[in-house]
Amino acid sequence: MNDGHEPLTESVRSLIDAVIRTEVDPEKIAAAHAHVAAALDILGEQMMPGAYGVRAAPDGRRAPRGNVLIGERNAIAPPLIVDRDEAGLVSTEVDLGAAYEGPVGHVHGGVCSLILDHLLGATAHRPDRPAFTGTLQLRYVRPTPLGPLRAEAWVEHEDGRKTYARGRILSAGQTTVEAQGVFIRPRADRSAD
Amino acid sequence: MNDGHEPLTESVRSLIDAVIRTEVDPEKIAAAHAHVAAALDILGEQMMPGAYGVRAAPDGRRAPRGNVLIGERNAIAPPLIVDRDEAGLVSTEVDLGAAYEGPVGHVHGGVCSLILDHLLGATAHRPDRPAFTGTLQLRYVRPTPLGPLRAEAWVEHEDGRKTYARGRILSAGQTTVEAQGVFIRPRADRSAD
Repeated sequence: MNDGHEPLTESVRSLIDAVIRTEVDPEKIAAAHAHVAAALDILGEQMMPGAYGVRAAPDGRRAPRGNVLIGERNAIAPPLIVDRDEAGLVSTEVDLGAAYEGPVGHVHGGVCSLILDHLLGATAHRPDRPAFTGTLQLRYVRPTPLGPLRAEAWVEHEDGRKTYARGRILSAGQTTVEAQGVFIRPRADRSAD
Repeated sequence: MNDGHEPLTESVRSLIDAVIRTEVDPEKIAAAHAHVAAALDILGEQMMPGAYGVRAAPDGRRAPRGNVLIGERNAIAPPLIVDRDEAGLVSTEVDLGAAYEGPVGHVHGGVCSLILDHLLGATAHRPDRPAFTGTLQLRYVRPTPLGPLRAEAWVEHEDGRKTYARGRILSAGQTTVEAQGVFIRPRADRSAD
């Protein structure tokens, strides 16, 4: 899909960061605000109701483009690019900046849980059958600094529609957060949509 | 603080939503993008390095304005407005729209964990001594629909620097996610900054 949407999302991602870190004076804040308002007016001319969900783009590909972690239309999403290797390991490399801060200079503990929830859940997903989180347990081993991180998850065992998964976040090769969880796929006769 | 920053953040929050839900044509996407780029140029003229952390504003009040959940400069933050009653119950009412979507029409399970991590942690915070998450356990009882939600947390018991907390998210009066966790305050001689 090349309708200019992804570059726009990328710029809004930079804008979120700039609004947090800018030190320009109130007059310039007002000038920037006028541009944001103008962009809003243009985009607001025609909007779908509710949320994006899973839709086909002009290229026919169905995807959850509004997803808070992986959506290519969602500026909140870092976005997370999830890789899977042949052995079933699911992993991501992500660089989290000022917008994901909790404790000073560190990633919010809840953002770590958000990433781990998604990654552990990804071990259980099947095409068009996303898994829902049943339980998730997190152990925070040490603070997670802002900056480049790796996260990985793998299946411990499966039992029918239930997947028991484990995972962790690493910063500079050291584990900062460990997770384990149970993820449940809806019955095949019940669509997630 | 009335330097126009909060209204700008609020508009960028609306912009995140509009980028997800807009259905305007590529020419209009490009026109909106030009405004976003112009805003970025203005704000980018002077930026603090790193992240916001905790700083004093012109009014002297120190606050974590970049915080991903409560920061008034952070457009990712809904923001969460955390209330505390005399009995120690910590709660928030929040309306989560398209930008927080995971399963179609529902809040991402990881966003629920992010909110609960923060809220349970808030039961353990002391002025200028934020608590860090030790462990967090989540049980997803039913899917959490996008829309107005309530979340609440309370202290189960305390043991020195450790706070054992519980909490839950409710949608239309029904519990969707339950949480319990242990939160740890750094020693008084070690600043969180």
